[in-house]
Amino acid sequence: MPVFKLQKKDSATSARAGELTTDHGKIETPIFMPVGTAGAVKAVHIPELKNDTNAQIILGNTYHLYLRPGLEIIKEAGGLHKFNGWDRPILTDSGGYQVYSLSNTRNLTENGVVFNSHIDGSKHTFTPENVMDTQRIIGADIMMAFDECTPYPCDYNYAKNSLDLTHRWLDRCFKHFSETEPLYGYEQSLFPIVQGSVYKDLRKKSAEFVASKGADGNAIGGLSVGEPHEMMYEMTELVCSILPEDKPRYLMGVGTPVNILEGIALGIDMFDCVMPTRNARHGVLYTKNGIINIKNQKWENDFSVLDENGTSFVDKQYSKAYLRHLIKSREMLGAMIASLHNLAFYLWLVKEARIKIIENEFGPWKDNMVKQLGLRL
Amino acid sequence: MPVFKLQKKDSATSARAGELTTDHGKIETPIFMPVGTAGAVKAVHIPELKNDTNAQIILGNTYHLYLRPGLEIIKEAGGLHKFNGWDRPILTDSGGYQVYSLSNTRNLTENGVVFNSHIDGSKHTFTPENVMDTQRIIGADIMMAFDECTPYPCDYNYAKNSLDLTHRWLDRCFKHFSETEPLYGYEQSLFPIVQGSVYKDLRKKSAEFVASKGADGNAIGGLSVGEPHEMMYEMTELVCSILPEDKPRYLMGVGTPVNILEGIALGIDMFDCVMPTRNARHGVLYTKNGIINIKNQKWENDFSVLDENGTSFVDKQYSKAYLRHLIKSREMLGAMIASLHNLAFYLWLVKEARIKIIENEFGPWKDNMVKQLGLRL
Repeated sequence: MPVFKLQKKDSATSARAGELTTDHGKIETPIFMPVGTAGAVKAVHIPELKNDTNAQIILGNTYHLYLRPGLEIIKEAGGLHKFNGWDRPILTDSGGYQVYSLSNTRNLTENGVVFNSHIDGSKHTFTPENVMDTQRIIGADIMMAFDECTPYPCDYNYAKNSLDLTHRWLDRCFKHFSETEPLYGYEQSLFPIVQGSVYKDLRKKSAEFVASKGADGNAIGGLSVGEPHEMMYEMTELVCSILPEDKPRYLMGVGTPVNILEGIALGIDMFDCVMPTRNARHGVLYTKNGIINIKNQKWENDFSVLDENGTSFVDKQYSKAYLRHLIKSREMLGAMIASLHNLAFYLWLVKEARIKIIENEFGPWKDNMVKQLGLRL
Repeated sequence: MPVFKLQKKDSATSARAGELTTDHGKIETPIFMPVGTAGAVKAVHIPELKNDTNAQIILGNTYHLYLRPGLEIIKEAGGLHKFNGWDRPILTDSGGYQVYSLSNTRNLTENGVVFNSHIDGSKHTFTPENVMDTQRIIGADIMMAFDECTPYPCDYNYAKNSLDLTHRWLDRCFKHFSETEPLYGYEQSLFPIVQGSVYKDLRKKSAEFVASKGADGNAIGGLSVGEPHEMMYEMTELVCSILPEDKPRYLMGVGTPVNILEGIALGIDMFDCVMPTRNARHGVLYTKNGIINIKNQKWENDFSVLDENGTSFVDKQYSKAYLRHLIKSREMLGAMIASLHNLAFYLWLVKEARIKIIENEFGPWKDNMVKQLGLRL
């Protein structure tokens, strides 16, 4: 079973450095997990992901993988690691979020969710039990509980009732998880998810309920869904104060480079977000000096390298003017370059944060970086 | 100026092995040139193009580059090599073909072609003279003459009048070429193009006219535009019998792996085609055993490597089932994998052909390969 070792705590903030050991290798935290929705991180080759971005763990989406290629294929392949050739750790979400965001029609009951595929309209049901089975088949090192992710804004009573349902589902997830076995000879963990929208009492109740499960790691969901950043930080701080210190904490779907540093300062160890790859496809580059919108005319004849501080091969291989041309021309190579750059930057950022935590210099470094990272270049 | 050295002639066919020296390096012929329409080979990184496909020369499209990023940017960059970072030879077409195939409105006169941009509808004029200037600015090692590429089928009288115009334009191209200088300190060649549709007398007349120019190399255009393959081969054979033996012969826009081997057998040294990359994006893979349509259900649970005989890293990195999933899911990674595979295969094929020519075994090898390459796997 995955073991988390807390290696160092920052004195000025709640930041921590740790190490999570799985059967597919170690993950040094804090860590960012590139999103590989359909078993592939968009526009990035697997060897590039390993060698150029230095990703230690990637995320797969249960909803997408369940629909395509489907469980039979993944099972026959011997799990997602064998299917896509990524031999480091994988985390899968529970599919809940995608059911709510992608499916046009869905029907939520005590039992689970009935929804129509966004691909062909076919009807499917997700329950806490079958989502555990699905993640067993995918073979993720870290599985996530099936929950309802409330939108923002969300009425208090809806959030309260939804939270109660999420908690009842959590019990069913753990029960089914404990009654089933991994299929491919390596261990899997189940992380529960704290919900409760932006209501302190609900978040507190949920964090306490989740903490009581004694899981290998714990997640915070339902944030970064449109609420102000300050509210997200407030909820994160509250929840982190309740979740156990000796287990990794995962803030789901977050976020910008600034969000990530602030999350680390609040005690978060794991992050995932589509932002570095999705925004890359629109020409947005994150750098240590700030944000570049490569479509801006100012880059048209800037023939300097993409990012002189960059850590991936694209940063010195291509110029800003060339990338601008590719993005404007909708050349696939543009998305490939920008995606690889952004992921390498995100991974550099969390690695640097880890170094600063270990050196007990995280607080002032973070304050200084946050000023830079948000600048529009 | 580019120098062609004829190294070996096959005894059973008209195939030749040669070496074309340019200021950006040597090209071993027969060669296939990946198409980099807008200054980028679609879905392939520049280092992959060099190291994984072993491309020796790539093609750029004058029409696309003229419209985007535009000549000012390319000139300021110091030419296309500096702009995209490809430091091996580049050939540019003249833009004529794209004016006819992409622009909705065009007006052909003795002077040139007035057309509307397919991007924003803006009005532009290409003449033999300004197309030479444009290719000087792009800085291609090999520039192509501005011609009219007739469609198929094409009325004899239209083809005859068009050919006369193409020949008058060719004189203007050479005149302007000789009156202008390269801009970036390295030599450029101008290749004339034989036209004449599928009419033997017109092809003969055109080949004789083109041969009389004493150019560094000669091209055959207006084929592979819909005519039967046998007709293409017949015209190619006729033209090759007239074009000088000591200069490279370039069959434009051709073709399938079988077309390329047959073209080599007829005495062609250079090829380009969008087929390996365009068809890759639709899941068509070329292999030495035949053609794979990866969308076919038969590959759904074929977890064997993409191509055990393949020469690029993708061939052993990814499985057929995984690529099928990516292509079906329209993941960019699918196009990236298939494009790299196909280009590496095309480059392997011409390299192998060259070896067989040098060993004087090309004829029987070609006959055997042609049977294999066309099979549907």
